[in-house]
Amino acid sequence: MLACLDLEGVLIPEIWIAFAEKTGIEQLRLTTRDIPDYDELMRGRLKILDDNNLKLPDIQKVIGSMEPMQGARDFLNWLKSEFQVIILSDTFYQFAGPLMAQLDYPTLFCNSLVVAEDGRIEDYTLRQPDGKTKAVKALQSLNFQVIASGDSYNDTGMLVQAEGGIFFKPPESITQEFPQFPVTHNYDELKNAFIEVRAKVRG
Amino acid sequence: MLACLDLEGVLIPEIWIAFAEKTGIEQLRLTTRDIPDYDELMRGRLKILDDNNLKLPDIQKVIGSMEPMQGARDFLNWLKSEFQVIILSDTFYQFAGPLMAQLDYPTLFCNSLVVAEDGRIEDYTLRQPDGKTKAVKALQSLNFQVIASGDSYNDTGMLVQAEGGIFFKPPESITQEFPQFPVTHNYDELKNAFIEVRAKVRG
Repeated sequence: MLACLDLEGVLIPEIWIAFAEKTGIEQLRLTTRDIPDYDELMRGRLKILDDNNLKLPDIQKVIGSMEPMQGARDFLNWLKSEFQVIILSDTFYQFAGPLMAQLDYPTLFCNSLVVAEDGRIEDYTLRQPDGKTKAVKALQSLNFQVIASGDSYNDTGMLVQAEGGIFFKPPESITQEFPQFPVTHNYDELKNAFIEVRAKVRG
Repeated sequence: MLACLDLEGVLIPEIWIAFAEKTGIEQLRLTTRDIPDYDELMRGRLKILDDNNLKLPDIQKVIGSMEPMQGARDFLNWLKSEFQVIILSDTFYQFAGPLMAQLDYPTLFCNSLVVAEDGRIEDYTLRQPDGKTKAVKALQSLNFQVIASGDSYNDTGMLVQAEGGIFFKPPESITQEFPQFPVTHNYDELKNAFIEVRAKVRG
């Protein structure tokens, strides 16, 4: 049985928000709640990086000073001892790298930035649309059962697709829309939910 | 880019052979080279375990006294820092577990044993036939490129399917049949081959 876990908000802080705080660039706090069109949001972010002359090494240095959420490493180590774990995220390998090192490099499926030789971030590429849900489907096609956990709307596709789904620290609106998924607020609760959902999935 | 790695013979010893040595049960040294029909081989192995009154906890205790190959942990840590790693193996989760703990639980796709409440191994189940090749295909369907490495015939399907393939300590016969794959004999060579093959695959 596989565990598919969202990254930002579950194991590490939201990278753009933490980055905005570290750099003091308020505009980088905008999310899809403010600018629903993801491509427009990302183009805006890349422009802000350019305007502030922030190249990938500068950004990685800031991200490298961030830390996984408290208890994340212990939780992940427990999860790996009980399930085969794959992290499904919409972030970019070049951003997640410094934080993944602190988590001993769990297997991560996410997206890539297009970086020039001088370190300027020129563009981004999504591996595929709705990548989290498609990853769960592909793993199910290999006869795995999947329990998925995440915190936000971009996780609900994989939670619905998986044999079991668990919310971790979600906004309240989402829990009303998807009342079928147990809601957890800390790693102890998440751990127990994984054990309970596994027992249900096994039947 | 993903790295798909065989387990036995690449990171850990061949479990059945090491188990035969530890227990002194010579018949457990038989492999598919001696009994080509895998199901017949496995039924024979399970009968030998029964005849010797070896239940899963006994077997796990013996396996727990084994160690990954020398240098395997360092190599795997390097590989995880450069690629997203998935281990593709024909072994069973219940056997691999104690050794996976010593490798910090990399993500492993393999098969399962059917174990009775008293610990007797009643049967085995293959997740699917030709599981390694199918796993590589499924990962490619998610727009990943894959570099695969293994040591024996049951790896050649995934090596052929992947964008790049590398042999690690293979028997000579196999290298003549698949001359397209670079042959490596230690972890330094394997590391360099991963770097070179990645450069080729990126083009």
